[in-house]
Amino acid sequence: MPTLCRPAVAVPEHVITMAETLELARAVHADHPQLGLALRLIENTGVRTRHLVQPIEQTLRHPGFEARNLVYATEARRRTPPVIHRALEHAGLGVRDIDLIVYVSCTGFLMPSMTAWLINNLGFRSDTRQLPIAQLGCAAGGAAINRAHDFCTAYPDANVLIVACEFCSLCYQPSDLDIGALLSNGLFGDGVAAAVVRGRGGVGVRLEHNGSHLVPQTEDWISYAVKDTGFHFRLDKRVPTTMHMLAPAMRALAATHRWDVSALDFHIVHAGGPRILDDLCDILGVDPVMYRYSRATLTERGNIASCVVLDALDRLFADGGAQHAARGVIAGFGPGITAEISLGSWTTAAASGVPPAAAMATLS
Amino acid sequence: MPTLCRPAVAVPEHVITMAETLELARAVHADHPQLGLALRLIENTGVRTRHLVQPIEQTLRHPGFEARNLVYATEARRRTPPVIHRALEHAGLGVRDIDLIVYVSCTGFLMPSMTAWLINNLGFRSDTRQLPIAQLGCAAGGAAINRAHDFCTAYPDANVLIVACEFCSLCYQPSDLDIGALLSNGLFGDGVAAAVVRGRGGVGVRLEHNGSHLVPQTEDWISYAVKDTGFHFRLDKRVPTTMHMLAPAMRALAATHRWDVSALDFHIVHAGGPRILDDLCDILGVDPVMYRYSRATLTERGNIASCVVLDALDRLFADGGAQHAARGVIAGFGPGITAEISLGSWTTAAASGVPPAAAMATLS
Repeated sequence: MPTLCRPAVAVPEHVITMAETLELARAVHADHPQLGLALRLIENTGVRTRHLVQPIEQTLRHPGFEARNLVYATEARRRTPPVIHRALEHAGLGVRDIDLIVYVSCTGFLMPSMTAWLINNLGFRSDTRQLPIAQLGCAAGGAAINRAHDFCTAYPDANVLIVACEFCSLCYQPSDLDIGALLSNGLFGDGVAAAVVRGRGGVGVRLEHNGSHLVPQTEDWISYAVKDTGFHFRLDKRVPTTMHMLAPAMRALAATHRWDVSALDFHIVHAGGPRILDDLCDILGVDPVMYRYSRATLTERGNIASCVVLDALDRLFADGGAQHAARGVIAGFGPGITAEISLGSWTTAAASGVPPAAAMATLS
Repeated sequence: MPTLCRPAVAVPEHVITMAETLELARAVHADHPQLGLALRLIENTGVRTRHLVQPIEQTLRHPGFEARNLVYATEARRRTPPVIHRALEHAGLGVRDIDLIVYVSCTGFLMPSMTAWLINNLGFRSDTRQLPIAQLGCAAGGAAINRAHDFCTAYPDANVLIVACEFCSLCYQPSDLDIGALLSNGLFGDGVAAAVVRGRGGVGVRLEHNGSHLVPQTEDWISYAVKDTGFHFRLDKRVPTTMHMLAPAMRALAATHRWDVSALDFHIVHAGGPRILDDLCDILGVDPVMYRYSRATLTERGNIASCVVLDALDRLFADGGAQHAARGVIAGFGPGITAEISLGSWTTAAASGVPPAAAMATLS
């Protein structure tokens, strides 16, 4: 059964703190009639630090969609390879063991996709399948895991590399002044993550069952307005209530697998904002401590879009992982409104037959 | 084994002929130093007619990326539903039988993806998986078939809807004056196609084996320059020679399946241009008549990107299909340079156990 191995994650070197974010909002939007509300909303996110691919002065300038997208390409090519190499090490595999690359990113657009660049420049086989996904937003981290799971179910000897690359700061739009935009400016961060799903062997989450759920008629709750200035992120004020519609979908999917979602051993979910985690605790009746990894990602890095679930999962590994056979859920949430949900059990090195060297790598 | 059923295809009502294209090129580029070469290249495509989502006067105006992308959204929402309904009829299935929608399109960008809109507006189940692919260009038609094949291999009772929606005319860039751009302006057309891959039953191509091939270091041969004015298509003059690198990949994939690619019964390939088809005949030693469906698509509709393979396959169906167990190949080619190749055998209604009504639908 396919196993999602330990992710590798990296965040850029430029850091902005909550205090700096609030100060900036006060300076840039001094005359904004809803400044007070925006500041309160940003404070409520609990995001202490975020990492950016460029210094804040550059981030605030908008040099045009073309220039922004070129920065995306340059930074993606610079920042994904080391993360990919670490993810492969964690899985005990080399580039030539990979049969499919799922590359998810909604903050830049390239054709050919980054998958072609990675194959050409990192030594992947020329018959590696390419699956670039650009239009699932924050849900794409979960979608990548689920499509990797499907692929290894079809081909049990296959291995899939997942790469999530999100430079949300390259979608900062100075002209967007609605409250959703102001909040987003204080919420999103940049990050790169990768993980391998091994068809056989491996330490981590043995993927057992996955599913997707689209909440009817919520397409305009989270969306991009595509303009001459690039992608403009639109956040509706109803989004924080989303868990009332997605938590039941998580419960239902678990039930089809004969699991009780409220009685699982670990929860790795997209930390889009603090309300998501609070509501999941309430609705699913789960102890807040269950969401400590997702919350830590949000607090230390902000909402890093499709990277969140991989970052939170990495924290579970760093914490020593779970008991063998512990049951858990991984869920990405994003535009649609869509949930991509995965159910799996923890598998340890001893159980998976992984050689000691690879097992050590997963703990490094 | 999964079966790719008869596609449904539609082209828009606005038509431009080769003569009109040449006349336009002469008028718009009267002073272009390479006008003669451009006209010869366009004539050599053999494209007699192309269909456009807007009248030619509107097509030639560039109202900005934002306005263009809004036209994309409007036209995609208007033109995909009837094609999808016909594809479902051909497969003898309803919207609620579909487990995954693979939506491929490189000529517009929406988030949420069109998959969310289709689920919301056409009555698909809320747990339908969404797989939007925007960055594989013309190869995406083949990629969609291959990912649908993989999905049904993982879940043998599943059914996958493939939708290809390409409005290449919305990527016309008046400011692009290099010879590749001028040729592209005379080559690409608009179209919408859909097809169902049934996990069980169905009439059409029983999908047996698939593979992908990336030609090393050819990323800049076919690409988008992403600019404030949208996607700018870049076509390198080396592209027509591509088959010398992709035909061997087709041969190799067939060999792993113990098939001789030169001895197949049908060939459905991406007709990116006439040279592709001519070279495939020469390199693979295949009779030109084998490529009549692909050539007809190119002649009557131009290069309709990811729709080409589905349009060519539809022509094989319209021609009465193949003999039961006839062996064939479907191949999409696109940026990367990437080939997405699929090998399968024709299966008839009698063999598949399809009820008469559905079998009739496939012949309608």
